[in-house]
Amino acid sequence: MIEREHLWWHELPAPELLRWAKEECDIAILPIGAIEQHGPHCPIGVDAYNAMGLAELIAKKTGAMLIPCPWYGSHPYHHWHMPGTIPLSYDTHIALLVDIVRGAAVSGFNKFIILSAHGQVSTTLVAVHKLGLEGFFTLSLHWYDFLRDDKEVLEDYMWHADEAETSMGLYLYPQYIDMSKAVKGGGSPLISRDFIIAPGMMPRPGMMYHFEGTFARPEYKELENGVIGDPTKATREKGEKMVNRVVDYVSRIIFDIQERYPVGVKPPVK
Amino acid sequence: MIEREHLWWHELPAPELLRWAKEECDIAILPIGAIEQHGPHCPIGVDAYNAMGLAELIAKKTGAMLIPCPWYGSHPYHHWHMPGTIPLSYDTHIALLVDIVRGAAVSGFNKFIILSAHGQVSTTLVAVHKLGLEGFFTLSLHWYDFLRDDKEVLEDYMWHADEAETSMGLYLYPQYIDMSKAVKGGGSPLISRDFIIAPGMMPRPGMMYHFEGTFARPEYKELENGVIGDPTKATREKGEKMVNRVVDYVSRIIFDIQERYPVGVKPPVK
Amino acid sequence: MIEREHLWWHELPAPELLRWAKEECDIAILPIGAIEQHGPHCPIGVDAYNAMGLAELIAKKTGAMLIPCPWYGSHPYHHWHMPGTIPLSYDTHIALLVDIVRGAAVSGFNKFIILSAHGQVSTTLVAVHKLGLEGFFTLSLHWYDFLRDDKEVLEDYMWHADEAETSMGLYLYPQYIDMSKAVKGGGSPLISRDFIIAPGMMPRPGMMYHFEGTFARPEYKELENGVIGDPTKATREKGEKMVNRVVDYVSRIIFDIQERYPVGVKPPVK
Amino acid sequence: MIEREHLWWHELPAPELLRWAKEECDIAILPIGAIEQHGPHCPIGVDAYNAMGLAELIAKKTGAMLIPCPWYGSHPYHHWHMPGTIPLSYDTHIALLVDIVRGAAVSGFNKFIILSAHGQVSTTLVAVHKLGLEGFFTLSLHWYDFLRDDKEVLEDYMWHADEAETSMGLYLYPQYIDMSKAVKGGGSPLISRDFIIAPGMMPRPGMMYHFEGTFARPEYKELENGVIGDPTKATREKGEKMVNRVVDYVSRIIFDIQERYPVGVKPPVK
Amino acid sequence: MIEREHLWWHELPAPELLRWAKEECDIAILPIGAIEQHGPHCPIGVDAYNAMGLAELIAKKTGAMLIPCPWYGSHPYHHWHMPGTIPLSYDTHIALLVDIVRGAAVSGFNKFIILSAHGQVSTTLVAVHKLGLEGFFTLSLHWYDFLRDDKEVLEDYMWHADEAETSMGLYLYPQYIDMSKAVKGGGSPLISRDFIIAPGMMPRPGMMYHFEGTFARPEYKELENGVIGDPTKATREKGEKMVNRVVDYVSRIIFDIQERYPVGVKPPVK
Amino acid sequence: MIEREHLWWHELPAPELLRWAKEECDIAILPIGAIEQHGPHCPIGVDAYNAMGLAELIAKKTGAMLIPCPWYGSHPYHHWHMPGTIPLSYDTHIALLVDIVRGAAVSGFNKFIILSAHGQVSTTLVAVHKLGLEGFFTLSLHWYDFLRDDKEVLEDYMWHADEAETSMGLYLYPQYIDMSKAVKGGGSPLISRDFIIAPGMMPRPGMMYHFEGTFARPEYKELENGVIGDPTKATREKGEKMVNRVVDYVSRIIFDIQERYPVGVKPPVK
Repeated sequence: MIEREHLWWHELPAPELLRWAKEECDIAILPIGAIEQHGPHCPIGVDAYNAMGLAELIAKKTGAMLIPCPWYGSHPYHHWHMPGTIPLSYDTHIALLVDIVRGAAVSGFNKFIILSAHGQVSTTLVAVHKLGLEGFFTLSLHWYDFLRDDKEVLEDYMWHADEAETSMGLYLYPQYIDMSKAVKGGGSPLISRDFIIAPGMMPRPGMMYHFEGTFARPEYKELENGVIGDPTKATREKGEKMVNRVVDYVSRIIFDIQERYPVGVKPPVK
Repeated sequence: MIEREHLWWHELPAPELLRWAKEECDIAILPIGAIEQHGPHCPIGVDAYNAMGLAELIAKKTGAMLIPCPWYGSHPYHHWHMPGTIPLSYDTHIALLVDIVRGAAVSGFNKFIILSAHGQVSTTLVAVHKLGLEGFFTLSLHWYDFLRDDKEVLEDYMWHADEAETSMGLYLYPQYIDMSKAVKGGGSPLISRDFIIAPGMMPRPGMMYHFEGTFARPEYKELENGVIGDPTKATREKGEKMVNRVVDYVSRIIFDIQERYPVGVKPPVK
Repeated sequence: MIEREHLWWHELPAPELLRWAKEECDIAILPIGAIEQHGPHCPIGVDAYNAMGLAELIAKKTGAMLIPCPWYGSHPYHHWHMPGTIPLSYDTHIALLVDIVRGAAVSGFNKFIILSAHGQVSTTLVAVHKLGLEGFFTLSLHWYDFLRDDKEVLEDYMWHADEAETSMGLYLYPQYIDMSKAVKGGGSPLISRDFIIAPGMMPRPGMMYHFEGTFARPEYKELENGVIGDPTKATREKGEKMVNRVVDYVSRIIFDIQERYPVGVKPPVK
Repeated sequence: MIEREHLWWHELPAPELLRWAKEECDIAILPIGAIEQHGPHCPIGVDAYNAMGLAELIAKKTGAMLIPCPWYGSHPYHHWHMPGTIPLSYDTHIALLVDIVRGAAVSGFNKFIILSAHGQVSTTLVAVHKLGLEGFFTLSLHWYDFLRDDKEVLEDYMWHADEAETSMGLYLYPQYIDMSKAVKGGGSPLISRDFIIAPGMMPRPGMMYHFEGTFARPEYKELENGVIGDPTKATREKGEKMVNRVVDYVSRIIFDIQERYPVGVKPPVK
Repeated sequence: MIEREHLWWHELPAPELLRWAKEECDIAILPIGAIEQHGPHCPIGVDAYNAMGLAELIAKKTGAMLIPCPWYGSHPYHHWHMPGTIPLSYDTHIALLVDIVRGAAVSGFNKFIILSAHGQVSTTLVAVHKLGLEGFFTLSLHWYDFLRDDKEVLEDYMWHADEAETSMGLYLYPQYIDMSKAVKGGGSPLISRDFIIAPGMMPRPGMMYHFEGTFARPEYKELENGVIGDPTKATREKGEKMVNRVVDYVSRIIFDIQERYPVGVKPPVK
Repeated sequence: MIEREHLWWHELPAPELLRWAKEECDIAILPIGAIEQHGPHCPIGVDAYNAMGLAELIAKKTGAMLIPCPWYGSHPYHHWHMPGTIPLSYDTHIALLVDIVRGAAVSGFNKFIILSAHGQVSTTLVAVHKLGLEGFFTLSLHWYDFLRDDKEVLEDYMWHADEAETSMGLYLYPQYIDMSKAVKGGGSPLISRDFIIAPGMMPRPGMMYHFEGTFARPEYKELENGVIGDPTKATREKGEKMVNRVVDYVSRIIFDIQERYPVGVKPPVK
């Protein structure tokens, strides 16, 4: 664990930020979430809170700098027009991610990790490759993809405002969770579940990742309470275990990067 | 003062957010700042902290809902390439503001106030008029424009990481300010100051607003310590007075809107 | 006064234009107006005529070259869909201004002044800062901002097709004005006038510039005769006084530039 | 000939413009030219002057309304970076034309003619078809395409600042032409002339229109005096004959439109 | 005739492709067509088949490399919404052409020919000039423009799915043509035919090229069977003659290029 | 197996295409590949050939219509600037996919499957969700994701021009494969392979999908022969087995769709 008074870019005065990139660690994490309704028991900021909470633990472990979380994210088409949710358009979100990494590189950071706690792989992938063309080393992670059939922890896969997300909230920001309002939710895909890889699920042959098709009715037509899955199964302990696993996985990658490319060395992306 | 447990959109569960818009207040404030170096004594998040701090006080007074502050902003050309600063491109920032207001309106909010604590009138104006064409009622405020020659409070006009901004920080987030590092800064415009309206200054005939021209050398070439003005003159008391004045001014506008257009009524913009 | 046969870029053969930029004056003025209805007594080209008229007088006084006025401009949202008016979209107008300055610089001009006689600050500001990022020195002026409470001349602030604009027309292009058709107009803002800085008005603390919000109903719904204000108060003398003041103010800025940056010297914008 | 005090949109007050579209003629002509160097003897505005001059004569003959000429145009790649010339980018010019026609239609005009006196078919064609998709009836004409081997009038085809253009200038705006400076120019294509249809030339099988390829070296590298062709052959009489022929040709098309679609009738484009 | 096992880029392994560009011929042809209904007797791929068929014959004769035909094209506005047809938007098609030529140049090709068998001059021209600005030598040809009043071969001009196109199909891909379903078609322009240059027609003075205006009703409203012209007049012999003429014309241009700019030499476009 | 003379959209006359969508099957497959070098032994069109070959077999089995394969695709950043390869920009490819599906829907198809045989998930995902917002039901598949640790067939995972791709070529288009030139290739990622899910590999917890980061040096700097993996292990039999498995997996999804949404029924995406 690295002792630091402030983990976040915006908390630091510029000279200290520049010193950190030059002398301590030139890896920067951009946590991204979303402003998205999460049922009657969770705050709308769940995804951003999760991204920031995970990022802080990873930063403490690895020395990475934290770039401000822009709160808003992009959304699969079926989230749009759902009250409570504020989606950015695909082009806006891609441009936002690219602008942030470009701008952050000016301060001396050479390696970037976009840590997402919300399904927005449609925009993170384009951003990563646009940045790659300009020579920026960037990884983009969705935390639930790091679990994959973690049956030691969860009963279900991860859906929405459910066992997984609520557990994480109970661990990271319990002050915003009201379990007395937690109710089971609904929602069923437009094609058989047999073909769809749920978030956090270990895929089987012949299955499609949950972002690769228009698999759902619009939420505002389908969801009664904004929940998919069963949040009543959530516990703080499950949240803690999940968080620890993800923090551990991401940190391993960061340690690998640090070993291969010490402070000041840019991976040869271009 | 209105009693509320949570002021921010992301802290609330969706049903409570929707109830607020429907029954209590359908005005939403979007505070915007910037990620911009503010010298050796102020954190990089100054502008975002100021916007959020002002917005919280206004929300408490008026009942307005607070939309998440996206941290990043657009910047005049001469801020670009300055370490510590992360500018969004003009097109990205305009699109971001438009997407956020569009998205927030889905939850039942009918009046929007973009409250800026950073010089980004170049993008807020376009956003406001694009939104107007779509029928959204939106105001955009830059807090320092609300002062205008507030000689009761400040010795200088407002520049950058100076008496004004540092005072506000000492009042709103003293934990991030280190006055022991505060030093006087430099910077002089490319044309005579006689023709330029400084932020917070009462204009005279024949003067241009500080955004209307390329009046400056690039910061990364000109500024030694990232400061323009004299932060050593800053005090918590000056900050409090400024904050109170701005909160008061903005609240008056909101009260006027509330009187003319009660909850549920959309001003006839289209 | 500088003796010149032709003031305008398009009137000159290229070799003479290039000689002027190289030997006489490398400041170029781009006058911009709009194609906008101006009531029953004024021609639709009022804003463009005003911009060109002012620019010619400034050019004579300072030696600046005049870049062709593209006639069309951008408009606040509430002007759209009004018969007689032809608004450019915001993105088109920004691109147009950027293209023109970029192109004009090829001929050896090093300083640019966008002189607007129509409310289009939403696009001029973005253009100025985009140009600044590319290293072009550009100022953008709205003439009525140069007056500010000129109570020696006008009874009212400046609105639309009113005392101010009609007076200027009577001085600069009386052949297109028909005072027999001049009638008083209407229009009232969506919020209290107390909070809005009218064009040409000296602002008070707590007031917003007239472009910073969606303050108006659409013109095509609200205006009966296309006039806001009272054109019957217009006189040629008032027009002459206003014109002289603006020409004087802008010329002073140009003289300052000429003194600091002689012909051939580019201000260090980049 | 139709008696009209003013031919141009911007010269008229809005009520008279609307009356004209409703009662007299709902065809509007948008003359477009360019800001392009035209050698030592012609003004840079040649193309715009020609477009406006032709348009005025056509308007007098047919009753069509004249939409303001935006002066600037798009250019073939090899015109770029030539001092004196100000090219709009392709996307800007397309957007400009589309915005103007869209906006002009609000005033009741139902048929549009883009009359070009400069080689910019690359942008006019896209504009026409984008407008067609929105239901606007629009024709785009390049005047020199209307001649085709007019050997009764000209010795050469039409090139640049040459016999043809200079003759037209001598007829339409002799005050800007200085024949004492007229010199023969150069320039030769990158492939054999046998394959290229010159402006105003009658094509043969196996030939390509002069816009269909990158047929030229950049002007700023190739042209010594900015002229292609021989302006010393120009006379006012040739100009008059050319002008009359073009005015006659275009007017015939307008008469055909007027007969088929009387005032108020929109051709069924959509 | 040049002996080659494979004519197409995609059929070759990369080392052989690069060798060809370096040693044999650095001219590459990009054939473009469209996915467009062609009546009951012709396949929807007519335009792409024609472009590819012509290109193959030209490649055999000249040694040019064939770049893959992207099948889809842009369309005049009146083709849109017609079942069977898949139009690309104008901006997509322009970007597609630019991307392809940019990408193909990386392999060592220095001269490009876009060979179109479908009316899409609205997008090819912009692409050519955008490419020209970047320094790429590019010609764009529409085969029917190469004929011009070929009365030795055809009775009619070229319209759509008619004598000309069907004849070409009977020669190049008879397996997809079903003459038993060939019927005469309809369609008449919105203005007099006297003013419109049909495809393959020799123009007269005062006529407009068939792409320069919104001359037609939408196909899906006007055409009963998707045919304009009379395909029953089609024969394999006419097709062969047309094909041979076009192949001959294009090859002459290629031979001219080869003579002026041997392998490895880039024409000085920039 | 369904008997059909022609499987492809472009081979059919329009009336037969429309009948098929209305009466037989309204599912359409858009096969997409790339123009990408595939070493000295494989043709550059490998990915497009694979996509088309798989699509034809699926179409025969399910009755789906085949939309023309546009040959070109988007590419991860490290493929750019590699001779032989022609990448479309990300924005162009997204727009292309959206335009094609939009256009194909006009003919009566209600369900779309984008079948990719090349790594371009960065653009297919955005296209799918943009289409979803417009109400189009679209799935996007990458064939190698359907295998996942198919150790019954392959020794290695799938890389590039290797055992997997070459085997598929030997089965589907042996005429273009030259095994005498097959050589083992190189290439190693910028971070440990332990964290990267190879194409066709079963992921483990803590691993990232091979598109989620800038994991590679640019190909043109790193690859000597354009191969990653070992094509000498390729056999026709392996190709046949892989092909059959993928065809089977995709067909199952199509059968599921056909059962849930018979011809004429649009899945409720909007």
